[in-house]
Amino acid sequence: MNLKTYYIEEFADLDKYFRRNLMNCLSGYKSLNLVGTISKEGKTNLAPFSQIFHIGASPALMGMLIRPDVVPRHTLANLEETGYFTFNHVQADFYKQAHQSAARYEESEFEAVGLEAEFSEKIPAPYVQKSLLRIGLKFEERHDLAINGTVMIIGSVQEIHVMPEAVGEDGFIDLEKLESVTCSGLDSYHIGQKLGRLSYPKPDKNLSII
Amino acid sequence: MNLKTYYIEEFADLDKYFRRNLMNCLSGYKSLNLVGTISKEGKTNLAPFSQIFHIGASPALMGMLIRPDVVPRHTLANLEETGYFTFNHVQADFYKQAHQSAARYEESEFEAVGLEAEFSEKIPAPYVQKSLLRIGLKFEERHDLAINGTVMIIGSVQEIHVMPEAVGEDGFIDLEKLESVTCSGLDSYHIGQKLGRLSYPKPDKNLSII
Repeated sequence: MNLKTYYIEEFADLDKYFRRNLMNCLSGYKSLNLVGTISKEGKTNLAPFSQIFHIGASPALMGMLIRPDVVPRHTLANLEETGYFTFNHVQADFYKQAHQSAARYEESEFEAVGLEAEFSEKIPAPYVQKSLLRIGLKFEERHDLAINGTVMIIGSVQEIHVMPEAVGEDGFIDLEKLESVTCSGLDSYHIGQKLGRLSYPKPDKNLSII
Repeated sequence: MNLKTYYIEEFADLDKYFRRNLMNCLSGYKSLNLVGTISKEGKTNLAPFSQIFHIGASPALMGMLIRPDVVPRHTLANLEETGYFTFNHVQADFYKQAHQSAARYEESEFEAVGLEAEFSEKIPAPYVQKSLLRIGLKFEERHDLAINGTVMIIGSVQEIHVMPEAVGEDGFIDLEKLESVTCSGLDSYHIGQKLGRLSYPKPDKNLSII
């Protein structure tokens, strides 16, 4: 297979829009979540994020990257003020609303795009009522990446709300049953199609589908 | 829809294996890449990573999380020693070999799982010859997350090798054409099925499929 190569020396000469798309596609499929927060004054905020990742299982920690210069800063300001935020998986039936919530609205994005907010008893941040997997998080740490101004936020998982039929006996969550959406690049959305779950890899053992 | 709730107070009482699966599934679909490195002595190393993310387009930066206690430390030691590493998308036809490369081998994982290494002229780190999207990176920054010992590595993109048919006129890379694989949890692999690409979201404009 002949591959095309782009070298760093040429990056600056690429069309700006072309380069932005290309670079945003490199990591592959991304972990799309709607992030819900609320201001001290009680105004809810919702925005899609794709740079969200598992940090640890015990304690349960998750992280997200925020570009203060390219996304609405309300998410960052709110979670630092209140100490809480939510992650909400996007299902296929509302992925367009999720995308639209990235627009720069004056009013709450929940109302603007027609997604209902829901609050739990313990977390002072709004969930997306339609989402079938919602995670309530407490703000723990902020790291500023000097290299380009990106902010990494780490939160501890406080509660998990999930469609029970999607959770297996071994704790595995079936994202296809949930119809959770993944994204690529800046604007492409996909659902998953399973190849298989594989047994634990050991040097002298053949893998089996589990 | 009635959701089941797991509260933080109960996490410690969950079966350890159940909790590990559950927590590793929370972020949704993940960015799977095989990471290639080489030691000073010339021994190649390959390992799958799923906590890989876009950090910036200009300059082009990518990050990855490494748990020094749970993954072979060779990747971290090698990239710090040589200053270089590669990301390689996993295609559907070798996802089992990718999974198997996580086993603790004495020899190079390339040989152990039967994936051929390939070197470019500029990057002293091995690529996966079968991969249709390969990225050569220079080690830029290391951040230690005190909260649980996770290490974040930031690299600058030096070169990109990609199947040309998958790159659109606007720079968008079609991951389905590449048959790139995404993973969920600790052991599940999936390909993507497109819902659509959506136009740039603005407050007073309807979205269209692009």
